[in-house]
Amino acid sequence: MGNVKGTTDYRGEEQRLRNRIRGVLERQFALYDFEPMETPVLNERTLLTSKYAGGEEIVKEMYVLSDQGGRQLGLRYDLTVPFAKVVAATPGLPRPYRRYEIGKVFRDGPVKRGRLREFTQCDADVAGVEGPEAEAELMLLAAGAFRELGIGAVCRWNNRRFLGELLSRLGVDEADAPAVMLALDKLDKIGADDVAAELGGIGLAGETIGRIAAWIESAYGNGNGGAADFESLVRRYGLADTPGTREVRRLEKLIDAVGLDEVCAFDPFLSRGLSFYTGTVYEWFAADGSLRSSVASGGRYDAMIGTLAADGEGAVPAVGLSFGLDAILELYRERGTRDERPAVRFVPLGDTLADTLRAAALFRSAGVRAGIESAGRKLKRALAAASAQGVRFVVIVGEDEAAAGRVRLKDLTTGEETDVSAECALYRVERATKGSLNEEGFDRPTDPR
Amino acid sequence: MGNVKGTTDYRGEEQRLRNRIRGVLERQFALYDFEPMETPVLNERTLLTSKYAGGEEIVKEMYVLSDQGGRQLGLRYDLTVPFAKVVAATPGLPRPYRRYEIGKVFRDGPVKRGRLREFTQCDADVAGVEGPEAEAELMLLAAGAFRELGIGAVCRWNNRRFLGELLSRLGVDEADAPAVMLALDKLDKIGADDVAAELGGIGLAGETIGRIAAWIESAYGNGNGGAADFESLVRRYGLADTPGTREVRRLEKLIDAVGLDEVCAFDPFLSRGLSFYTGTVYEWFAADGSLRSSVASGGRYDAMIGTLAADGEGAVPAVGLSFGLDAILELYRERGTRDERPAVRFVPLGDTLADTLRAAALFRSAGVRAGIESAGRKLKRALAAASAQGVRFVVIVGEDEAAAGRVRLKDLTTGEETDVSAECALYRVERATKGSLNEEGFDRPTDPR
Repeated sequence: MGNVKGTTDYRGEEQRLRNRIRGVLERQFALYDFEPMETPVLNERTLLTSKYAGGEEIVKEMYVLSDQGGRQLGLRYDLTVPFAKVVAATPGLPRPYRRYEIGKVFRDGPVKRGRLREFTQCDADVAGVEGPEAEAELMLLAAGAFRELGIGAVCRWNNRRFLGELLSRLGVDEADAPAVMLALDKLDKIGADDVAAELGGIGLAGETIGRIAAWIESAYGNGNGGAADFESLVRRYGLADTPGTREVRRLEKLIDAVGLDEVCAFDPFLSRGLSFYTGTVYEWFAADGSLRSSVASGGRYDAMIGTLAADGEGAVPAVGLSFGLDAILELYRERGTRDERPAVRFVPLGDTLADTLRAAALFRSAGVRAGIESAGRKLKRALAAASAQGVRFVVIVGEDEAAAGRVRLKDLTTGEETDVSAECALYRVERATKGSLNEEGFDRPTDPR
Repeated sequence: MGNVKGTTDYRGEEQRLRNRIRGVLERQFALYDFEPMETPVLNERTLLTSKYAGGEEIVKEMYVLSDQGGRQLGLRYDLTVPFAKVVAATPGLPRPYRRYEIGKVFRDGPVKRGRLREFTQCDADVAGVEGPEAEAELMLLAAGAFRELGIGAVCRWNNRRFLGELLSRLGVDEADAPAVMLALDKLDKIGADDVAAELGGIGLAGETIGRIAAWIESAYGNGNGGAADFESLVRRYGLADTPGTREVRRLEKLIDAVGLDEVCAFDPFLSRGLSFYTGTVYEWFAADGSLRSSVASGGRYDAMIGTLAADGEGAVPAVGLSFGLDAILELYRERGTRDERPAVRFVPLGDTLADTLRAAALFRSAGVRAGIESAGRKLKRALAAASAQGVRFVVIVGEDEAAAGRVRLKDLTTGEETDVSAECALYRVERATKGSLNEEGFDRPTDPR
């Protein structure tokens, strides 16, 4: 019996790498003082479809169901809406309130490489901070996480308020702006000509399309991938002191001050599809361009929480950052990153199960991973299986050894075999593997103090 | 907007405790050489309703839905069926194959204290081991996990094959046996009289009910909670050399040999509701009786995997152990176990955001958890909020300090405030908190080597 389309099982090497990524992100979230949160997969459908939630495109892909009490439910499609719900429904939360969540989300959409219907998001969000320090902190967090993950990554960022002002100068009605942003966001994927065609489909006047095309021409396609000079844009379109411009300048100042300018580039075409973003938006990509989809993304959404609050407490500013676990895994896969997992294998021969369990318990209480071979397997086959699985040390417990309170320790790399007590075998394994076995401890990095 | 009935949000202290429990279990699973696995929440409905899967009682509580391609789906109600699916569908897996999975499961059933509709299971399973060493290892694992969790726990165990043989001697037809086992399993909760009434409801002959009542009378209610003398049962009902008796004896021998007899007691009435169990079954309870529901449970299911395999490779023996994360959390709650989370709080005063971010980055790269107060909050309120949240050290970054490359370090426990460099502040915090801040690292215990 197979899997549902768009879902997959993770095991072995692959799942160990996913745990490693997860562990690094959890550590970074903790360092930045985000508290852990876990929200339900099952949600009221009205929450998931409310204004400023996922928006039309995502809601179309929502899995819907009802329970035996007749409640209309949906499976969450992201972790942002559940976070906004908690903040809106919990008046006593400290402000700023910072949480992270790692969990599964579900979208009944097209399935392609690196895009499943059931996937894991790793999100950090801050509620209650109006200023750009929230964005800057999340950018620092992402930079630190990618450093610890061993991934060279760069950030492209923009501000939807600024982009709206710019489009308005180009003659785009406010009502058309979201669709225009959606089209511009595809510039990298489909190119300037196809973007112009999409703009025609929206029903923009030819004159407006021409002005947009001229802007694209001037700012893009000059080989720098859209890292246009923000101030020249501001001068050219007379946006010197607009709210959007001020927001961009404040964040840019912080980015420069903390050295993020080395990895973060302003990109006036970036908007991200989601209409709930109200200000800064950003996406992180592999620096070597090896993966087209982003490895992390997020932005500011100042309207969502206020809309969900019953008591009309008004707007609560919020900024989020979401890592794509599966996109990062894809990068590791392409690079052949491995997570080795050596363990000591115990092989009982004859009626020695209890002795074997006791010897393995000794190793395990010393923190050494220990597996036990099936009773009754031939020694030769057991050793071949261990060797094939990358095991170095085998502890053989035969009836004679057990009677004498000994075991046979075999090093599969040298073939050397010695008759020793279980305690002695443990010391030898510890000495021989100090360092190499420890190295794989990276899926549980040291906890922040 | 509220939560769906039977679901909840976890955050703060509670979620930190859940992460601590999860971390301990992951470490134990790794020590016993179980590899991590993650299976989908969404499953083909035919898988979840197949023979030897959850069984009628659970399937009634399954959430059902369909995707846009018209596939009939269900949300998984446990982690055992998805595991059996992977083993059945993956011929190249090593045998024995050992995996653990921690994940959410869903049951649209009655909601009560400690029982939600969306909850987390933590399972370890072994496939391919016929002998009792698999059960003994899982019992050792559970005992080690509860030790590390600081929970005194005891195990009650039985064997459904043996129980079936015994019921057969008492005159119960094979077809009635599952219903009788279900009734006997409630002995602790509803008492002998109500069990007899339930047996009447099944339609057993009065004579058979009488014999069962006599057995209960002899083995139960003598104050030892059902830890009856297995061998006296065997003699009384003439079960000296049956397959079930042999299985019980082999496991009991191992239990005694590895010292588990101190915490594991044979209980002939235990059967667990699930009909897929074919041999040993066990449940772990808090030793002080503070929680009626079990904190872990499992057993042997030798028929499920073979039924799911397409190629008819025949039976694959399997044994599992499932920890209830929420039941363990409930125990911690009752005992007031806390997971402290001190952090250093940074307070920017005036235009010092960049300096504050840089100082916080210094602390974070040294592995110290650092939170940043909202810009613009009055110092007095910021200090009161930090104090209320249990923060000890505050780093104040005013404009004068920033200009001089200094910060003000304030110890909220003593009120002492000093003007120092950020580096010096870090050393002081590290020295003052060595030990105490480290102690909370327990949600990420040292990884097994």
